[in-house]
Amino acid sequence: MDDIIFGKNAITEALINGEREINKILISKSIHTDAKIEKIKTLAKERGIVFQFVAKEKFQPYAEFNHQGVIAQISPLKYADLDEFLEQNHQNSSLVILDGVEDPHNFGAIIRSCVCAGVSGIIIPSRRNVQVNSVVEKTSAGAINHIPIIKVNSLTNAVQKLKDSDWWIIATDASANDNYYDIKYNDMNFALIMGAEHAGVSKSLLKMSDFKVKIPMMNNFNSLNVSNAASVIIFESLRQRIKK
Amino acid sequence: MDDIIFGKNAITEALINGEREINKILISKSIHTDAKIEKIKTLAKERGIVFQFVAKEKFQPYAEFNHQGVIAQISPLKYADLDEFLEQNHQNSSLVILDGVEDPHNFGAIIRSCVCAGVSGIIIPSRRNVQVNSVVEKTSAGAINHIPIIKVNSLTNAVQKLKDSDWWIIATDASANDNYYDIKYNDMNFALIMGAEHAGVSKSLLKMSDFKVKIPMMNNFNSLNVSNAASVIIFESLRQRIKK
Repeated sequence: MDDIIFGKNAITEALINGEREINKILISKSIHTDAKIEKIKTLAKERGIVFQFVAKEKFQPYAEFNHQGVIAQISPLKYADLDEFLEQNHQNSSLVILDGVEDPHNFGAIIRSCVCAGVSGIIIPSRRNVQVNSVVEKTSAGAINHIPIIKVNSLTNAVQKLKDSDWWIIATDASANDNYYDIKYNDMNFALIMGAEHAGVSKSLLKMSDFKVKIPMMNNFNSLNVSNAASVIIFESLRQRIKK
Repeated sequence: MDDIIFGKNAITEALINGEREINKILISKSIHTDAKIEKIKTLAKERGIVFQFVAKEKFQPYAEFNHQGVIAQISPLKYADLDEFLEQNHQNSSLVILDGVEDPHNFGAIIRSCVCAGVSGIIIPSRRNVQVNSVVEKTSAGAINHIPIIKVNSLTNAVQKLKDSDWWIIATDASANDNYYDIKYNDMNFALIMGAEHAGVSKSLLKMSDFKVKIPMMNNFNSLNVSNAASVIIFESLRQRIKK
């Protein structure tokens, strides 16, 4: 069963990346063509992928999504395997682990930020976390094609594997003593655990972590959006690596 | 004409803040009560505000929103005035200027991040930028009650006023030479201009800026979500101010 992805950037990136099989691209007759649509048509022709112009009524089932008049039927995303990931050579690499993030917009934005900041992969649990879906793909603006998404049955087991492979584990925790910028992110492989929007990182994972960090907050308003919080920390690690 | 706001956090913060008149709170009979709903009831009682339990069908017009079974009718947000803002005493203050941000989720997330990072205000133009609406209020998780939103007819005039008041102007620009962390944010009042999701900061504002900064990007994937980009920069300025 194919997935549906929508939006100009998401479809362009999937076409460029080329790892997933695209069955068909539907373009609404009612939209004006533009450079991005033309690029989609060119890429589709190059890859021998059918594209059809269809009445806008065909898009009715997707009305709740910001589809920009273009959708594609695509083979489901292939999740990556943690063991295979760890067998690769990693030096100053980073991972982001999502522990119960529920909002697909947040997941998509985190994928974008991770790709922009050079994070090597994202680990999600197979339950209690939003999975990759059309909204995630769209919000990621195609970034999902540039980073392995590793799905695991147990985050606890995954974190233990990472520790056994000498990765350092950093968890975000509003009651931590250290600020996120007190950590030296250079010269190590690290995995950053971001918690659920409301509950934060689960206790079992906090216990396994080598560092707990918080983002200092002003105004007694301790409620940063999880994708924004993730971005602040991973770009601080990039800053340190560039500046060192 | 009242606005509608929805979501537990947004309504709680509006009740606590108290500056806006709340006409009525509607709670869906079909939701289970929890600590947050109880807090809303307590706060409403304290302020003498009517709350009603209604059939879930009453929420049908708001089905597209994640209303969490509670909505409030509230007087429209009072936008702040730039001249009055500038008459206040500002020292090491910061502002964020939104130049054409279209997505209400991004606007809401930026408001949250600004409050968390201690930014003093947000300037939006009266046209070509998303205005404060129900989605913005919800996404801001009530943060909108903790920061002045300054609406101006002309961003160019507003930036000139800021310059005349010795504020430094920093614009984000993907082709800038300086990275955002090369700027010393201490000991100055500054306004950070964030551009539209696709077009970036407009040329006229770039010309008026004292600094242009970029966020370094890996993977040739230059497409950070605008709220994440704003967070990265404003938390870097907070980091510098705390660490100095």
